[in-house]
Parts: sequence; C-alpha cells; structure tokens
Amino acid sequence: MNTVGILVVGNEILDGIVLDTNSQWIINRLKPLGFQVHETITVRDNVQEIGDALNRLLKDGCNLVFTTGGLGPTHDDMTLQGVAHGLKLPLELDQASLDIVTRQYKMLHERGIIESGEITDSRRKMAILPRGSKPLDNRVGGAPGVILEAKGSTIICLPGVPLELKWIFDDQVTPILKSMMREVYAERIVALPLRDESTLAPIIDQVMAEAPGVYVKSLVKPYGEEGIRLWVSSLGEDQGEVEAKVSKAVDRLVELTREKLPNG
Amino acid sequence: MNTVGILVVGNEILDGIVLDTNSQWIINRLKPLGFQVHETITVRDNVQEIGDALNRLLKDGCNLVFTTGGLGPTHDDMTLQGVAHGLKLPLELDQASLDIVTRQYKMLHERGIIESGEITDSRRKMAILPRGSKPLDNRVGGAPGVILEAKGSTIICLPGVPLELKWIFDDQVTPILKSMMREVYAERIVALPLRDESTLAPIIDQVMAEAPGVYVKSLVKPYGEEGIRLWVSSLGEDQGEVEAKVSKAVDRLVELTREKLPNG
Repeated sequence: MNTVGILVVGNEILDGIVLDTNSQWIINRLKPLGFQVHETITVRDNVQEIGDALNRLLKDGCNLVFTTGGLGPTHDDMTLQGVAHGLKLPLELDQASLDIVTRQYKMLHERGIIESGEITDSRRKMAILPRGSKPLDNRVGGAPGVILEAKGSTIICLPGVPLELKWIFDDQVTPILKSMMREVYAERIVALPLRDESTLAPIIDQVMAEAPGVYVKSLVKPYGEEGIRLWVSSLGEDQGEVEAKVSKAVDRLVELTREKLPNG
Repeated sequence: MNTVGILVVGNEILDGIVLDTNSQWIINRLKPLGFQVHETITVRDNVQEIGDALNRLLKDGCNLVFTTGGLGPTHDDMTLQGVAHGLKLPLELDQASLDIVTRQYKMLHERGIIESGEITDSRRKMAILPRGSKPLDNRVGGAPGVILEAKGSTIICLPGVPLELKWIFDDQVTPILKSMMREVYAERIVALPLRDESTLAPIIDQVMAEAPGVYVKSLVKPYGEEGIRLWVSSLGEDQGEVEAKVSKAVDRLVELTREKLPNG
C-alpha cells in the first residue's frame, strides 16, 4: 500500500496565524486513490528541521512525501534548501524551472498584477532545486512545484498558498499518483441518533470482528449535541468488493444499534 | 524559553474527516504567555506511533508537550497507552480520575443525555493512567485530561473534542502554565461594546507598535453575545513594570476606540 507523509513548513502555522487546511485537502484527494497518510509533521522555516523531518518520514516508511510551503521568493522560504540538506544533495539552477518562473512573472506583469517581470535573485531562487529534481508547472503563482526520487521514495514539494497547491495537485500530481496506485478504498459515514459513544463501543467491536478489513471509527460531537457519526471504511484490491464490505458493515451497525438500544 | 510540542492523535484527522483546529487554538493561548511551539506531529491511533512521536518531541527539546485526542472510552482511544508505552511506564487505575468519570457520567445521566450512569469497562478505561499522572478535571465530557512529568518535561493530554479541550485548557491548564512561566506576567481583559473585530485591528496594531513588549489579542465571545474582549498582556523581568505597561496599553486602547469609533 502506498504510505504517505506530509511535511508542513511554516512559522506562520506554528505561530498560530494561519490554519493548515492543505493537509486535509491533500488527504481527501489521496483517499479515493488508495493512498493512506501515515503521519504529518509541521516544522518552522528552518533548513535543519525541514531536512530532519523529511528524513524521519522517509525512515518511518513513507514512499511518498508531500511538503507544503516555503517555495516562494522571500528569505524565509527555504524548503528546497531543507530538502537538499536532508538528502545531502547539491542545489542547482534548473533551466526548466527557470523557464516556468520567467513565463509566470511575465504573465503576472502583463496582467498588471505585479510591477515588473524582471527575474531578480529572489525570483531566480525559486528555480534552484536539489539535483535530480524536476519542476511541476504552476500556472497560478510564481513558484514551480518540485518532484524528486530519493531513498526509494517520491518527494513532491508544493507551494503553501492553497489555490496554487490545489492547481498543481489536480493538474500535475494526480496523473503521477494514478500511475502509483496499488489499492482501492471505500467509505461511508453513518449518522446515528445516539448521544453516548461508550454504549456504541461493544457494537463497533462486534461489527469489526465480524467484518475483517473494515474499520469503524466513531466521531463524537460534544455532549448535549444530537447524534454520533460512525465512519466505516475499507481498503482492498477490488472496488466492488470494498464497497460491498462497507455497505454490509453499515447495515449491521444500524441493525445492532436498533436491537440493543431501542430508545437510543 | 518554554518550548512546546503538540502531538495530535487520530485516524480521523489523517483520513481527512476532521480538520485539526485544536493545534492553532492551543498555539494562540500559549503565545501571550511566552510559550513557543517548536513542532507538531500528527499520528494515527496506534500505541507504538504515539509513543515514538512523544519521544521525538521530547528529544527535540520540548519541555512541554500537549497531546490531543484519544482519551475516550472506545477501542481506538489509546493515547494514554501510547504515552505509557513511550515512557515505559505501567498503566494504573487512578482513583481521582475514576471519581471524575463517575461524577461526569452520573451528571450526564441525571440530565437525560445518556441512558445509564453505570461505570462500564469502557468508561473505567478513561481513568487508567500512566503511573505518576494526575487527572485534569473535565466538566464538559467524560474523559479527564491527564498531566505528568517525565524526562524533565511536562506532558499534558487533552481530549480531542474542541469544546472539552478548551474548557480543560482554560480552567485547568492555564494556571499551570502561569506557574511555569519564566518571566513575570501581567494581563488585563477589557470588554469593549463593539461587534466587529476587523475595525479594531488597526487600533490593536497601533497600540502594540507604541508599546513594545505588550501583546493584545482580541477574544470574540461565543453564542452571538455582544461585545469583544481584548486580552492585553506583557511579559518581562519586573512585576511593577509589566503591570504599568499593561495598564497604559489598556487606557490607550479605550481612548483610541472612543476616538475612532464613537458610534461603536
């Protein structure tokens, strides 16, 4: 199974200014393709910390790692330096990346969005990649994404700006993921008119025992609010098969709940 | 300086069902007290992974680690087991925790929120803590928070349900943090009869620019209540000095608000 790590880079997140919504978005794009996220780590804009966190994710068995943030032109954008440092790779100006940066700043300038399309040192920095990387096109902002293979894994670096991240992911990354797919996934979320998670616990245990390969997790609302949701999921080889397993488990949960807890 | 790690536990987060907002909330409560977050790690409901991630945060120099999630009664709530495993501590039934669980389920039963106040095995599980831990009261839900000292650091385990996490943090954790503060601290909370946080923003920026070392945070009231509170704080070496700084900043905020927003 494909195992994914997400490395979120940015002082603004660890200083509470920005809420990371990119991770959840990426995860929801990965799920239907059978990619499971093992772990996420959030670090500051720091070359050593970025490199160490990347290596931890690789060591923990992630064969695919996404980094988000830190690809921009300013002094605190150092994700590529961190990745290069962690992987002990030199940094090199990549012509294909520079072509993307040049085209993008020309376009932004022609549209009157920025004052000058000149490729300054700050802007050129965005095309300096760890050796062996390739750029991923970005038609929304200035910084190309980056993809490289290292230690038997694929590392994909994306901008932190959600609009850019999403564009690059859908346009450039998804075809790559499809070529990597190994399993399929099905899920359903069931709302039950119960308020008490602890009375459901034995029912959940029973259904999971009856249905190997199906995972049931209860998602609790704070006491006083109506209802508990059960999230039922399964990974497998065949789409029809995992969907049937999940359906059957859902029916069983509803049946047992009605049977054992007639008054909710 | 106090260095904090946050360990977010939960399959539901890594499977994209739930967005982690607790981390950002905790960070924003820590900031005015001078605590900086070094790193966050998000792991699945897995004893080994929880233990390993905790140890990584401690090894990375965090003298305060928060865990969120995984304190409930169901089979997938295993944060305390993970913490115990990581720290090589036995798990033991804690009477004070059990008293909290018992009291809470009795209250929820008496209010008609749950069917029975009986302390089942699932519920008792929430009072089984790593040796040496103490409970933190929870008057919103069933699971006590947990605090323990290990490897020279403080570890605080909080429920993942935001309402419970916030209640325990404000009621139980904040006094503990204040005692850990290495500098002296003064604060005042000012209520202003305004409804729009964004109009206050330039006023806040101006006062913070005029008063280095003073931190102003706006706290919006829940449930559509009138008014915004400003939390004005300062850290420093001398108690009298920080109190004077805070007083002066409060007066300035009130003055500017009256001046610039005469009609609220």
